[in-house]
Amino acid sequence: MSITFTVLDRDQQARAGLLTTPHGSVETPVFMPVGTQATVKGLTPDMLRSVSAQILLGNTYHLTLRPGDELIAELGGLHRFMGWDRPILTDSGGFQVFSLATQVKINDHGASFRSHIDGSPLELTPERAVEIQQNLGSDIAMVLDQCPPADAGPDVIRAAVARSILWAERCKRHHTRADQALFAIVQGGTNLDLRSECTRELVEMDFPGYALGGFSVGEGPPAMHAALPTCAGLLPDHKPRYLMGVGRPEDLLAGVAAGIDMFDCVMPTRNGRNALAFTDAGPLRLRNAIHRRDPAPVESGCPCYCCTTFSRGYLHHLFAADEMLGPTLLSLHNLSFYLRLMAGAREAIRAGLFATFRAERLARWDSAS
Amino acid sequence: MSITFTVLDRDQQARAGLLTTPHGSVETPVFMPVGTQATVKGLTPDMLRSVSAQILLGNTYHLTLRPGDELIAELGGLHRFMGWDRPILTDSGGFQVFSLATQVKINDHGASFRSHIDGSPLELTPERAVEIQQNLGSDIAMVLDQCPPADAGPDVIRAAVARSILWAERCKRHHTRADQALFAIVQGGTNLDLRSECTRELVEMDFPGYALGGFSVGEGPPAMHAALPTCAGLLPDHKPRYLMGVGRPEDLLAGVAAGIDMFDCVMPTRNGRNALAFTDAGPLRLRNAIHRRDPAPVESGCPCYCCTTFSRGYLHHLFAADEMLGPTLLSLHNLSFYLRLMAGAREAIRAGLFATFRAERLARWDSAS
Repeated sequence: MSITFTVLDRDQQARAGLLTTPHGSVETPVFMPVGTQATVKGLTPDMLRSVSAQILLGNTYHLTLRPGDELIAELGGLHRFMGWDRPILTDSGGFQVFSLATQVKINDHGASFRSHIDGSPLELTPERAVEIQQNLGSDIAMVLDQCPPADAGPDVIRAAVARSILWAERCKRHHTRADQALFAIVQGGTNLDLRSECTRELVEMDFPGYALGGFSVGEGPPAMHAALPTCAGLLPDHKPRYLMGVGRPEDLLAGVAAGIDMFDCVMPTRNGRNALAFTDAGPLRLRNAIHRRDPAPVESGCPCYCCTTFSRGYLHHLFAADEMLGPTLLSLHNLSFYLRLMAGAREAIRAGLFATFRAERLARWDSAS
Repeated sequence: MSITFTVLDRDQQARAGLLTTPHGSVETPVFMPVGTQATVKGLTPDMLRSVSAQILLGNTYHLTLRPGDELIAELGGLHRFMGWDRPILTDSGGFQVFSLATQVKINDHGASFRSHIDGSPLELTPERAVEIQQNLGSDIAMVLDQCPPADAGPDVIRAAVARSILWAERCKRHHTRADQALFAIVQGGTNLDLRSECTRELVEMDFPGYALGGFSVGEGPPAMHAALPTCAGLLPDHKPRYLMGVGRPEDLLAGVAAGIDMFDCVMPTRNGRNALAFTDAGPLRLRNAIHRRDPAPVESGCPCYCCTTFSRGYLHHLFAADEMLGPTLLSLHNLSFYLRLMAGAREAIRAGLFATFRAERLARWDSAS
């Protein structure tokens, strides 16, 4: 086994665990910063370590287009290429094909499409998705799945589930890399019967970990929060559970409460680049003139380099002057916020106080907004 | 005295010295990275310290326009504002008024112009230039001078020299901040008689340091290299000498040979943002396809974070993908190159081997290009 997973503490449905990988261990529940193009935008690996990032996500679709997975393999794999020696999870590329590529045609064989960069014709099959991720050398790879849009009809969703199951099987059969774990992805939209059926089929194939797909394009937070406990509860208890592409701080807490172990989302970095800071006292828009003369840190008490070194007034200036350092510093702070939130959740689970922890945070954020 | 300067070693005209300021001491000859808008573009103060930057340059014109020097004073001064606790030198803003502002009108009173940011009407007088820099709280301030274009006729240059002398006197009279040194600027183009006359007048006023202005817009490197020994030789021996806005690595070595102690230039950072790396084996264009699969560091043996962590192939990818981290890492490396070059020059002067050091470097760069 390339990975092991142990649930160390439980608090109702929430769990705190330890995931070990060939590149070190990860305390769960964990948030994974997104390094789409072999870099978390604007941040060095040193900066990511400084906010205690444990594991990063890389994007298969982007990396096979540019610089190419064979090139990354030739240069020693994704870890060495991007200077990150801790664990990496790669997605399968399916989600990006459907959201970014053009002229997408899909059948049971796979997806054919044109690159969003140069329009060149490409194909992604379950076998190719595995091959790319084996070239990248991530610690955890994901099966190719078909993620239908939120407004798809029941027939489309049912067909996507059937195809995702078929593809998961082909991915598993094609996967050979011993130092990489391959996770399955459950689809089915908000139809719990379909989710249940999909889960049953995938669990029978015995993957080392399971993800819930489709929620980041789903019917919105209330529907997701309602569906999560059931969907997570269907998954094997002793294997890691990953909620893909979600989301806001309150969504992470809902996921943890439902028994999810792993999360990823571009929100902290994308919002950071757009001058929006997450803080425990609610969000801050650093472009707002109210921050112009403010000597306070972005979030008082935050131990990150941005908050211990600079004022809101300085951040406001950097964004007003369109200086690169603004997006860099605020991405760093937002990741610090997300990673501290998850560290707090782990601690609360260990103490058996997660429900209180969650309620307190939600109340604080509510009163701030 | 807010600063002291001691020449510790001499090697022909070249000198190695120690400049002490209220924010610490600086070994000379020194290169000052340029932090135009209260940030060296894309780099944190921590990164600047990691390549042994000793002193930064800030731009008075940019900072008074945005965020404003009163605001910076209110937030504790430029050092605290930008999180840099080592020395800072600020220019007077004159050079930027003439190169960036629009509708510039100039007379003995000062310069009136419109902001290049929002078109608002502004005025810069010698007194205001001093006031701004006192608000910024730099360790070293510069007098307001008039820097005529390279192709100006002798009458224009003569008038600019006369006005620069007049303004230097007014700056000195207006300057009150005890923890800040005010340096004078010698103008005169490539007319050595005018340079000599301007120097004599300014030396009589007894400034704690002297700069040579106008060479960055001058008649080109050969004329500058020829004029530098004479121009530097006219300056007081026991005070720091600063060659403004110059330049390429070979220009720095020519300046050091002529007895210059301080330099600043945007080349290392601007070129870094444009994917051009300085190395001892000659320049590298990281966008060039030849670097695509290259596992070598940008410069082998360079101790900077970029070179010890990443390959040329990775840098090529970052620039191809338009990722912020590319400009950041290559700016860092280029500053490391410039600062190591100056450290090497200091060591060579101490050993009495500067001429050999310079000749070896020039030969190496020549053979590489």
